[in-house]
Amino acid sequence: MLDFTYQNPVKIIFGKEKIQDVAGEIPPDATVLLLYGQGSIKKNGVHALTIEALAGRRVIEFGGIEPNPSYETAMAAVNVVREKGIGFLLSVGGGSVLDATKFIAAAARFEDGDPWQIMSGAPIHDAVPLGAILTLPATGSEMNTNAVISRKSSADKLYFSSPLVYPRFSILDPTTTYSLPPRQTANGVVDAFVHVMEQYLTWPSDAPLQDRMAEGILQTLIEEGPKALTDPHDYNVRANIMWCATLALNDLIGQGVPEDWSTHMIGHQITAMHGLDHAQTLAIVLPVIMDVKRDKKREKILQYAERVWKIDSAALGEEKTIDSAMAKTREFFETLGVRTRLGDYGINAASIPAIIEKLQEHGMTALGEHADIGPDTIREILERCL
Amino acid sequence: MLDFTYQNPVKIIFGKEKIQDVAGEIPPDATVLLLYGQGSIKKNGVHALTIEALAGRRVIEFGGIEPNPSYETAMAAVNVVREKGIGFLLSVGGGSVLDATKFIAAAARFEDGDPWQIMSGAPIHDAVPLGAILTLPATGSEMNTNAVISRKSSADKLYFSSPLVYPRFSILDPTTTYSLPPRQTANGVVDAFVHVMEQYLTWPSDAPLQDRMAEGILQTLIEEGPKALTDPHDYNVRANIMWCATLALNDLIGQGVPEDWSTHMIGHQITAMHGLDHAQTLAIVLPVIMDVKRDKKREKILQYAERVWKIDSAALGEEKTIDSAMAKTREFFETLGVRTRLGDYGINAASIPAIIEKLQEHGMTALGEHADIGPDTIREILERCL
Repeated sequence: MLDFTYQNPVKIIFGKEKIQDVAGEIPPDATVLLLYGQGSIKKNGVHALTIEALAGRRVIEFGGIEPNPSYETAMAAVNVVREKGIGFLLSVGGGSVLDATKFIAAAARFEDGDPWQIMSGAPIHDAVPLGAILTLPATGSEMNTNAVISRKSSADKLYFSSPLVYPRFSILDPTTTYSLPPRQTANGVVDAFVHVMEQYLTWPSDAPLQDRMAEGILQTLIEEGPKALTDPHDYNVRANIMWCATLALNDLIGQGVPEDWSTHMIGHQITAMHGLDHAQTLAIVLPVIMDVKRDKKREKILQYAERVWKIDSAALGEEKTIDSAMAKTREFFETLGVRTRLGDYGINAASIPAIIEKLQEHGMTALGEHADIGPDTIREILERCL
Repeated sequence: MLDFTYQNPVKIIFGKEKIQDVAGEIPPDATVLLLYGQGSIKKNGVHALTIEALAGRRVIEFGGIEPNPSYETAMAAVNVVREKGIGFLLSVGGGSVLDATKFIAAAARFEDGDPWQIMSGAPIHDAVPLGAILTLPATGSEMNTNAVISRKSSADKLYFSSPLVYPRFSILDPTTTYSLPPRQTANGVVDAFVHVMEQYLTWPSDAPLQDRMAEGILQTLIEEGPKALTDPHDYNVRANIMWCATLALNDLIGQGVPEDWSTHMIGHQITAMHGLDHAQTLAIVLPVIMDVKRDKKREKILQYAERVWKIDSAALGEEKTIDSAMAKTREFFETLGVRTRLGDYGINAASIPAIIEKLQEHGMTALGEHADIGPDTIREILERCL
């Protein structure tokens, strides 16, 4: 097991009708900026519940945060925070709204020039406190320090991470996810699944508990994901997916083990340049990385095959077991309705050089747990994603 | 899944040579009370490392905290805290030292009479901040709000719980456990194992991820526990047991599911009156509770049998599967060297009425996830423990 330091102070408030408790979690004297996305919270009642729960508080609203939240939109919110003396940010929505909120929290207190520098590693020293009402299980942003932001002007999609942007609380009411469109439900399951895989599918580091927790999340997502599509109002199914997504990326399962975030890094750039949903890019890239890195990931892929998919590797032999595990992974994504080839989204070989160039520009020339996924390997991966 | 609120802010610093980082975790101007037990930290070098790491700080020492830490000893430390203006408590040792430290932290700031009242639920409003260097994986006290304290004068052993006594940090260096006597290593594995069982072996609440995390800890303890006895200097084995013990009772796996702490409650009283090691009492009581409550716990015992012990319930039938799961649980404890009958410790039927009477005195007349383990059932359990 590798050494680690872990501290995650986020307060998770999980269950039915918990939105009504939100006021008690926010300092009473703070002016609250309520941030939301494209308006689904106005249709499903979450907005009204939130406003009702905050009765008597000073609340200003900022809507319109887009999926793959943009720097441009976030900076408009930063202006509101500064002009209105906002003391608390309340994100009401999915991971995109929350990621934007984290960036806004940091950017509003950033005094060293253009806050976009935060995305390339400029240190932050302060942030506006924030909390979340989560309506889409997927990113784990509700219990981690990460945020992914896109800049339209340069077709970039980058992430930053800081303990200063941990939500003070996250309210997870699974009933708020009943009304999600199937595509968003499926995307969330794929996103959580790939988060686990990127903390799991590396090399064995004699950390059997971390492995089993990871496998437990994967198995649960495989069982529960399709159920959420056929019976979207099943409370326990929605609750289980929601808790899986949180634990998939609250950093617990990644403690003490190597990680490989190459699928996310390559996927982000595909989204930035071609507009695919985040989860679509992950569903395309992950199975191919398993194949291209089958030798270096061999032991863990075999373990994944045996434990998660119950493939009899002794009977099948190693190569066919790996093939089968990859096929089952791809099939799982496709069954959820998430297509797994670049061609499914109209992207062809001509787009590959620009993606590689952008990754190089961001210094992503040595991805993976062995830092051996450079431009040539990325080209091979993308060509096999077609 | 049941509703829950979860927040656990403890900073875990895990790995080799981490004790040297302790000073950075403690406010520089605080006078530190370094608390420890029977002196093993002076033999294994942990005391010297800690003192070295705290060079230049004001440190007062308080040693001699016993296993099953006593109110009487803790109150002597409370006097030191008050007299010397102690600003930070540093527990260096196992769960007993840390539980005592938590009680001392609360008692030193308790102003409503005798601090023993804390153990029967008197509210606490403040506590001296504390941190831990853990040298014995077992209780999970390093990442939870609980403390168990015994009062010699009345042969009581009770617990309290408060977020105010969360350690600010816990340093877990697995190498500090190399020198543990086999009995303490085994006890720690049994304690962690039973912590998991008490959050798992109730009724199915459609919480498959919590189940799998629990099963993952159990399986890992079953694999790694015996290895620690045969090869006490295997770093990864020690690290895996240490992380299992922390996650067994940092309250994560208990979120959203029913719990049954009857084994602990009955076990505590056996220790208080007869001096058995804590884990010995758990190893005695748990298998019998599985038997006595086999009908109400049926579904989960069968799941435990199939998943943790790989018992083929379809081939064996339900009753024999349950019998086999109980037998394997008992055998696991015995293999570690922990005897599982009251008679093994010289306790006979004559002792049973007094144990039941004490539990009644403490209001423990409706234990278990169904609150149906009362005096009569406890008598039946204890008689079958003989």
